[in-house]
Amino acid sequence: MKDCNLYCTNCSKKFPLTKGGSRCDVCGEPLEVEKFLGKIREGNPLTQKVLKRYQEFFPFLDKELDFSLGEGFTPLIENKKLANELGISKLWFKNETVNPTWSFKDRGTVTGVLYALSQNYKKIGTVSTGNMAVSVAAYGKLSDLSTYIFVSDTIPEEKLNPIAIHGANLIKVIGDYGDLYYKALELGERNEVCFINSDSPFRVLGYKTLAFEICEQLNFDIPDFVIIPTGAGGNIRGIIKGFQEFYESGYITKIPRFICAQSKGVNPIDLAFRNNEEKISRFKDPKTITGAIGNPFPPSGNRVLSLLKKTNGYTVATTNEEIIIAQKKLAENGLFVQPGSACSYSGLIHLIEEGIITKNDSVACVLTGSGLKYTAIFERHNLSSERYDIDNLDGILK
Amino acid sequence: MKDCNLYCTNCSKKFPLTKGGSRCDVCGEPLEVEKFLGKIREGNPLTQKVLKRYQEFFPFLDKELDFSLGEGFTPLIENKKLANELGISKLWFKNETVNPTWSFKDRGTVTGVLYALSQNYKKIGTVSTGNMAVSVAAYGKLSDLSTYIFVSDTIPEEKLNPIAIHGANLIKVIGDYGDLYYKALELGERNEVCFINSDSPFRVLGYKTLAFEICEQLNFDIPDFVIIPTGAGGNIRGIIKGFQEFYESGYITKIPRFICAQSKGVNPIDLAFRNNEEKISRFKDPKTITGAIGNPFPPSGNRVLSLLKKTNGYTVATTNEEIIIAQKKLAENGLFVQPGSACSYSGLIHLIEEGIITKNDSVACVLTGSGLKYTAIFERHNLSSERYDIDNLDGILK
Repeated sequence: MKDCNLYCTNCSKKFPLTKGGSRCDVCGEPLEVEKFLGKIREGNPLTQKVLKRYQEFFPFLDKELDFSLGEGFTPLIENKKLANELGISKLWFKNETVNPTWSFKDRGTVTGVLYALSQNYKKIGTVSTGNMAVSVAAYGKLSDLSTYIFVSDTIPEEKLNPIAIHGANLIKVIGDYGDLYYKALELGERNEVCFINSDSPFRVLGYKTLAFEICEQLNFDIPDFVIIPTGAGGNIRGIIKGFQEFYESGYITKIPRFICAQSKGVNPIDLAFRNNEEKISRFKDPKTITGAIGNPFPPSGNRVLSLLKKTNGYTVATTNEEIIIAQKKLAENGLFVQPGSACSYSGLIHLIEEGIITKNDSVACVLTGSGLKYTAIFERHNLSSERYDIDNLDGILK
Repeated sequence: MKDCNLYCTNCSKKFPLTKGGSRCDVCGEPLEVEKFLGKIREGNPLTQKVLKRYQEFFPFLDKELDFSLGEGFTPLIENKKLANELGISKLWFKNETVNPTWSFKDRGTVTGVLYALSQNYKKIGTVSTGNMAVSVAAYGKLSDLSTYIFVSDTIPEEKLNPIAIHGANLIKVIGDYGDLYYKALELGERNEVCFINSDSPFRVLGYKTLAFEICEQLNFDIPDFVIIPTGAGGNIRGIIKGFQEFYESGYITKIPRFICAQSKGVNPIDLAFRNNEEKISRFKDPKTITGAIGNPFPPSGNRVLSLLKKTNGYTVATTNEEIIIAQKKLAENGLFVQPGSACSYSGLIHLIEEGIITKNDSVACVLTGSGLKYTAIFERHNLSSERYDIDNLDGILK
């Protein structure tokens, strides 16, 4: 293992990488793995795993990287028609829905599990009812580590099944689910379980690869803006870290402006940013269709807030109605994403109206998860079909 | 456009590539695009589309290949644990569930649409209720071609929604849906609609890239067996064609044995092969959970049969129960696939028992579509979870 520490994103206190936890003992804010600079490993991505290509940027990947489900290396799709329509210079979609469990979470799960393996943990866990639960269940069972997925007792059966199919230990927890994120960290320490929660520093590390890929895919000519749907804050933290490490390694000559996109139904980071607060506050009475990013008190909220300020970033929040319209528009451009993912596109429209993004700007929207993850949303769309007799089809085709 | 013809896979009659249809005017059997030999284009797959990399193997892709959703370049995942368990030399899974609409169909849809664009069609269509309908709806709407999806009038609403969200013309057809494949070809000719059905020669062409990638991913040291879940027969035709073209282009020194995997509930190709018939017969009274490959009278059935005989291929069919067990086993190895895809793995188990695949053999199983496509199957699994009080979680983690 490379010589490397964890540090507190708030008070800068250092901890050894072996500590395992997610939060500072002193101030309670999120920990992060120190910066790594390095070189991209040459080779053909068709015969190379994503973590092999970017291995120099990771501290605990010294062994042969056999453990993978083929996460990452997702397409960056340019859409000229929509860029024209919106009146901006260029528009790309980073399609994370084509990861092994159909969301971006896999990039962070694989690094989380590799960390657990490197530290000889025998047990891993997570607290999630959505994409992350599925992802940890899939990778955990594959790794042969005992895997515990804590979900809320009130979760509907249809959300349980895609987690349960992977065969991990699925635990419905009776009690205040909001507390469970913090509770799990204590439980983990007492019982030697490596909890790979939403903003675990070892999960955040994995999201760097998303940034690395965007840089490579654009031949290091990076976009002016990167828009990231944000719930707990792990993904945007990792993406910013990735761009920063490529910048300091000399691969890119500027850093994009990062946009934290939320739903107006649950926008604690957006609210704190726009009100110029130092800290986020718990969002009361969330009402959103974007379950995947619907965290009322994001554990990495303060860290994201300070990163946005430092990097000239920005926030945006859109309504459920705007998000549904964006979801349909993306589907009509071939990309069916879950509502939480569509808020990067509805957010883009807002930022153009606001004058933050203008005609010479290039923009990459991150699409975080597949539309098949949340089919209840179909009810909110006015989808139609027509009925024709088999002998009467010429009429419609004329 | 390169100089190239279509030919009948049965009577060898030639037709110009511009003909557009799928079947021979004389004998009614499927048409195929003539063989292309070529070179792989160098470059980094991260900045290269799949059809750009293999462009020399395609006849109508002379223009800049802007049109893409990032299909292909899917992972080939080795699983040493399962290979050990089964007592074979090596085992890989080609994970087609991470294509843009989460099935292999996208590889063929993109070439089908590019053909339609190259011939200046204004309208495209397909006959499908599953993966292909979704795929053509997504790419069709993106291409700005008028897109018509013909589904059966009896299709449940939950299968309609993922098609309808893309905004193509969705037509429920009242009448004998079994006839519609052939009817659509006539309708297409009369109304200048390019029908990209299951075994259209321009769709089959796209599936070659799956074979090309397997070759590259294994550094041209190809597996002894490739097992392919087979319904209409388009995918297996394209995969065999791809290996043959790489063989004749000098990239590989042998061709794998191809296994056509079906469900025992609908196994017309398997039955004809095992009974040494010249032609397939319509399968009566299909009873299968593998809707995606549940074609009782596959339009490319005879072609697949003759290809298997020529290439020393083989067939296998497994029961619904075996397929469900295979689906669970794959999910416990991180890969949640639809039942139709799991029959490549249940088929593998059978072929080992049969002595066709033995301990020195290496095997690649194609996994064709995502498990999220058919969630009704959860009822057939005995999935479980436990309930614990939030203050009582140490017990389970000990």
